[in-house]
Amino acid sequence: MSASDVGMSKWELDTPALCLNAAALERNIRCMGDYFRDRLAALRPHCKTHKCPAIAWMQQRAGAIGITCAKISEAEVMAQAGIQDILIANQVVASNKIERLVNLAAYTRVMVAVDNAENATALSAAAQAKGIALRVLVEVDVGMHRCGVAPGRPSLTLAGHVVSLPGLRLEGIMGYEGHAVAISDFDERRRVAEEAVGKLIATRDLLERNGIAVGIVSAGGTGTYDISGNCEGVTEIQAGSYATMDAKYQGVGIDFELALTIVSQVVSVTEPNIAIIDAGAKSATTESGMPRLIRPEGWYLLKLSEEHGHLRRQGGEQLHVGDVVEMVPSHGCTTINLYDAYHVIRDDIVEAVWPVAARGCNR
Amino acid sequence: MSASDVGMSKWELDTPALCLNAAALERNIRCMGDYFRDRLAALRPHCKTHKCPAIAWMQQRAGAIGITCAKISEAEVMAQAGIQDILIANQVVASNKIERLVNLAAYTRVMVAVDNAENATALSAAAQAKGIALRVLVEVDVGMHRCGVAPGRPSLTLAGHVVSLPGLRLEGIMGYEGHAVAISDFDERRRVAEEAVGKLIATRDLLERNGIAVGIVSAGGTGTYDISGNCEGVTEIQAGSYATMDAKYQGVGIDFELALTIVSQVVSVTEPNIAIIDAGAKSATTESGMPRLIRPEGWYLLKLSEEHGHLRRQGGEQLHVGDVVEMVPSHGCTTINLYDAYHVIRDDIVEAVWPVAARGCNR
Repeated sequence: MSASDVGMSKWELDTPALCLNAAALERNIRCMGDYFRDRLAALRPHCKTHKCPAIAWMQQRAGAIGITCAKISEAEVMAQAGIQDILIANQVVASNKIERLVNLAAYTRVMVAVDNAENATALSAAAQAKGIALRVLVEVDVGMHRCGVAPGRPSLTLAGHVVSLPGLRLEGIMGYEGHAVAISDFDERRRVAEEAVGKLIATRDLLERNGIAVGIVSAGGTGTYDISGNCEGVTEIQAGSYATMDAKYQGVGIDFELALTIVSQVVSVTEPNIAIIDAGAKSATTESGMPRLIRPEGWYLLKLSEEHGHLRRQGGEQLHVGDVVEMVPSHGCTTINLYDAYHVIRDDIVEAVWPVAARGCNR
Repeated sequence: MSASDVGMSKWELDTPALCLNAAALERNIRCMGDYFRDRLAALRPHCKTHKCPAIAWMQQRAGAIGITCAKISEAEVMAQAGIQDILIANQVVASNKIERLVNLAAYTRVMVAVDNAENATALSAAAQAKGIALRVLVEVDVGMHRCGVAPGRPSLTLAGHVVSLPGLRLEGIMGYEGHAVAISDFDERRRVAEEAVGKLIATRDLLERNGIAVGIVSAGGTGTYDISGNCEGVTEIQAGSYATMDAKYQGVGIDFELALTIVSQVVSVTEPNIAIIDAGAKSATTESGMPRLIRPEGWYLLKLSEEHGHLRRQGGEQLHVGDVVEMVPSHGCTTINLYDAYHVIRDDIVEAVWPVAARGCNR
């Protein structure tokens, strides 16, 4: 995975290799950027998917207003790469993490989600000690039932608490309609997403009626960018998977290109209709289903054991030991997190090797 | 995850953290070492589980005769850490990987599995070019139907080919009864494992009747060490998971201690019977089921989303934001591969931080 791979053929790489189709990546990023160019909502791409500053910068140049991160460690990597405006769309709770958060906020623009009064108080104390104003979004549970305070009065109560605390600046609210993003029927996806965003907007209205300004209303994912991104009042969309895409989101019918693949080599053939490849569960995740084999035709991936993938033939040519196959990860976010680097491919040639700089940043 | 964590309490670590109970690890390694001390079969632990030279060396000191690896990149890491006798229990096919294999074999003892005549010929050519004798085991498919040539005559044919090739030294045969290791009924597990090993021994006999010496007969995993390890003719056992253990193998009824856990922090509590923790699918794998929450009592892990774990209460005390919980990975091998380091814990205090040096070595 060294830079010396540049100039090699994609089909001669040491396998398994995580490959990124440069042209498809560029089109995906441009297409999403264009979509938000003339809209009221802006794009703040989630980098938990790609974990790669090079891609985050491509997104910035295509019109994104900053990035979204899942963890403080991820935000640190992106800030070190020069990204200027970072939303940590998650709770930062541990005292060690809060200290890192305010240290980060002292030299770059950072926002963090809160859904708990004690956590807000702790953030306030740390921000005061650091002598900064920490930017905060109240996270509202819009129906996914993960993090977030209930819409309406509970959100108002927490927002009022945040406003009352020194060292914090309430910028607005966020909610993630994660229960909508993977609904494959578009009308149903729209119905569920609009219902969720409706709770967010009603909460915004309640806060504003009570004298609390709500500058930012952040929502959305790749599955709902064209729904939530058009809802009145939403100011930012947190889509992440669109840049690389994966088989799961393609299955939902999301119209971006599959830029992310894994090339893997056949290491054993014991029967004409069976082939074993060198990519297993340590090279592709399966919590969203099996990766989808796209090359060669006629074969599919039956299962992954730890170090091997089990291919079966329904048609097409027989495979031989040494042949190289290609598959699309079912879930890009977790699969990318298994690799140290992308091989960036143009016209089947390695153009660059980009570190997955935030790989393993789960803290 | 720096060495500066040494001396910290396990309950104050930056989370999620992969923790290794030092005393339990030591007992597991000693117990398995003792088991094989006076047996005809020896122990060659599989390091695909722990990926950690520090643990591999503990195993050597407890009587192991070397280690087993899944990939050439893993073997390179272990050899660099001074491990002397390495079986790559897998096919090494790509020309780049074969070159690395013979380079490695030139300075440490290495064996590799083969199940294909063309691959054997390629290994022979590379070994000749390097001027070495590469040690080879013919892999026999003993019923798992992954890699391996069929038992009996096909194995004899391949073994004869290997013997005829310059640059190769046939050391013996191997077979992995992976279809037996996770059968929870011991008698059934024994029946299936003994049937599998029977095919291996019959193949050994066939080879020897045909004048091919079979010095090594390698088999087994943590689920069958006390079955295959007692079968007449088996000379080596490849058990890996026993050192750290995991919930999957505990569920099978394997009698080693759970040394591996993840500590994670509660980041959101929105209802009394629900808590959200900071360990999701990027911090624990689920292809073998959910991780098992062991602390606090009364709670269980309902599901993992990407960055969060969803806890539910059946009893016990309410959890609060900031509380630390502990869980046992369902599948240690793939979960360890998500982390850069172990926190080695004794009496709840960090004693050492050990790099997962072969993390990501999937090539």
